Amino acid sequence: MVEIKVLQNVLKANDAIAAENRKRFKETGVYVIDLMSSPGAGKTTLLEQTAKRLAGEIPFGVIEGDLATAADAERVAAHGVPVLQINTGKGCHLDANQIHNALQHFDLEGLQLLFIENVGNLVCPAEFDLGQQTKVLILSTPEGDDKPEKYPVMFQQCPTLVINKIDLLPYVPFDLDKVRALVRKIQPEGRILELSCSTGEGMDAWIDFLRDQVSRSVR
Amino acid sequence: MVEIKVLQNVLKANDAIAAENRKRFKETGVYVIDLMSSPGAGKTTLLEQTAKRLAGEIPFGVIEGDLATAADAERVAAHGVPVLQINTGKGCHLDANQIHNALQHFDLEGLQLLFIENVGNLVCPAEFDLGQQTKVLILSTPEGDDKPEKYPVMFQQCPTLVINKIDLLPYVPFDLDKVRALVRKIQPEGRILELSCSTGEGMDAWIDFLRDQVSRSVR
Repeated sequence: MVEIKVLQNVLKANDAIAAENRKRFKETGVYVIDLMSSPGAGKTTLLEQTAKRLAGEIPFGVIEGDLATAADAERVAAHGVPVLQINTGKGCHLDANQIHNALQHFDLEGLQLLFIENVGNLVCPAEFDLGQQTKVLILSTPEGDDKPEKYPVMFQQCPTLVINKIDLLPYVPFDLDKVRALVRKIQPEGRILELSCSTGEGMDAWIDFLRDQVSRSVR
Repeated sequence: MVEIKVLQNVLKANDAIAAENRKRFKETGVYVIDLMSSPGAGKTTLLEQTAKRLAGEIPFGVIEGDLATAADAERVAAHGVPVLQINTGKGCHLDANQIHNALQHFDLEGLQLLFIENVGNLVCPAEFDLGQQTKVLILSTPEGDDKPEKYPVMFQQCPTLVINKIDLLPYVPFDLDKVRALVRKIQPEGRILELSCSTGEGMDAWIDFLRDQVSRSVR
């Protein structure tokens, strides 16, 4: 029982700071997406491809969360995107306080969009509010079509699901219809975007989604 | 600081129960492997393929850890393997107490080998001792070749790495030599097994590894 109590306190403290972050984001006029997935589902690659397509149109930045290395930050920065790397050490998810501290070192001025790339983990990041406007989950086809049932909390938390690596569908056992049906049950109003960062298929719909979200938030 | 203290207490309590589990496993003469990976790297599929190959030779059982569903247990049980499913709810890893409780309902008698399939997570399960003899990590090629650097704790904890889905190498960006070199740095004495559960390539070496571990443990 002690552990549960501690977790509740941690979540409560987290939510208070997340609310501050959210206020700050609103004042600055930046739309913030918490991007989550298993390790290797394609979060950073999606951001690289997004940078290529949104360059000169919607100025955006990235906060990267990883246990170790600045590898992801370097990949994103190579596309001219302002980026800040948080190393969590052994931490399995980002929390609102880490984002709050990061914002002391990251200039939001002039940005319309901010991605927070969470630690690769289909469990722990789900319930930690960072102050984002929305959460986007990436599921890649090699992970298998049973994931919505096996990791229900994450799928419940994310109104937008990107199914990535659809170019691998001929080579992996992944029933797209099954996943669509499972996700519809969990998120009846949710959005599913199917794409491949490798071939570019489906990327237009992703970019349109971002344009739409940013323009609604500016209004 | 409070959080760190709590985590240390939790780990200490966990280790005491893990020691009890380890004693129990030794007395029963069963060799226990904690099998870990990201979601969808192929833990359950590897166990299914192992069941096909070890049938009638080495009697083994499986304890499954998942947030939700008994889907993995059903897949393994279909191969005639005794299996027990633990549902962790929101829990991001198995702990020694869950295994301790599971053993009240799981007959080890006559088994020579027990797999504990942990929750799909490349972070949190790493440091929780369950009482196993060894830890095996699966990395699948679609996850990318940067994982040893980005999830160092998990790679440090596992003396044996299975690189799965090598049949997908022609279709995904994954530099096998790079991963071998990274892992050699983290685990100079470690073992790397490269295989495909789909095509069966490399499965013989995995089965030989299991035979060897079990026969050493019986001696």
